[in-house]
Amino acid sequence: MKNTALLVIDVQKGFDDPCWGKRNNPDTESNIALLLSKWRKKELSIIHIQHCSVEPNSPLRPAFPGNEFKDEALPLINEKIFTKTVNSAFIGTELEDYLRSHGINSLVVVGLTTDHCVSTTTRMAGNLGFKVTLVSDATATFDRLGHDGTEYSANEIHKIHLASLNEEFCVVRSTTEVLREFA
Amino acid sequence: MKNTALLVIDVQKGFDDPCWGKRNNPDTESNIALLLSKWRKKELSIIHIQHCSVEPNSPLRPAFPGNEFKDEALPLINEKIFTKTVNSAFIGTELEDYLRSHGINSLVVVGLTTDHCVSTTTRMAGNLGFKVTLVSDATATFDRLGHDGTEYSANEIHKIHLASLNEEFCVVRSTTEVLREFA
Repeated sequence: MKNTALLVIDVQKGFDDPCWGKRNNPDTESNIALLLSKWRKKELSIIHIQHCSVEPNSPLRPAFPGNEFKDEALPLINEKIFTKTVNSAFIGTELEDYLRSHGINSLVVVGLTTDHCVSTTTRMAGNLGFKVTLVSDATATFDRLGHDGTEYSANEIHKIHLASLNEEFCVVRSTTEVLREFA
Repeated sequence: MKNTALLVIDVQKGFDDPCWGKRNNPDTESNIALLLSKWRKKELSIIHIQHCSVEPNSPLRPAFPGNEFKDEALPLINEKIFTKTVNSAFIGTELEDYLRSHGINSLVVVGLTTDHCVSTTTRMAGNLGFKVTLVSDATATFDRLGHDGTEYSANEIHKIHLASLNEEFCVVRSTTEVLREFA
């Protein structure tokens, strides 16, 4: 268990901006808070990823209040934070070196959004040889339009992305299952 | 156009094995053949990615006939081939260095499968700063089961993954649109 870090991706206030559209999994933040509490109690590693967008109008730009972490996922002073500018938490950061130098070979991944930053980071983590557990109800996404104008709901996007990731890049588990495993 | 390579991912005979289940987009291989023909005529860069699985039972293992390229995507002697063992064509290969040292800043991505190796490679290419065009009808995937046992069809998986990738990591275009652009 000492080798397993909780990786909390982009749980930032800017994702409450209406520009993103409708979201699924409203319990994501409270589930992340439960997992953070368990990890802190067990004194296990916690790593926070903060998206510092370079897009002119993104609510996640460093100059904007949306760049701040949400209250439920506020890092403690002793918890590591990596900032990134693209989807993958492994690109343009020292995350991989940090994990290897700290003997962390296993990640429990939570955060926003399922099909963008969470999926990309999960894929790279798996391909780099880390054991990854992705927490199905501690991640969420937004409704999206296809390139042909078809509308897809956040919930169907979420479920299909979990199906594509499971058993190829990670294992998918619920918050309850992860909490039980670490009890 | 000289800066744009056609990146052909895992178009190998092993994907015809029944173990993968039902597939969508049966015209994928003929569309890839059309794109290869156009790139060769225009003397543009073509890069082939070959998956050399390390899974004991994968039809894509180097020792198995399924490791071979399909006839429609057989590399010519002057075309670059990178072999890989994970989903991303950028992990464990010299692909990124090759692209940068050859002044290639733009990729047209085709191949198998949409939500595994094609998606992972497209995501990393976009995050590494390459301009990516993903060809919607020159990629395909298979039916999958979710972690909760729900069945998803290849076609719905395919369409939702394109929606998640479009305008975030790449632009999605059809074979006809790409051929017209390069005419």
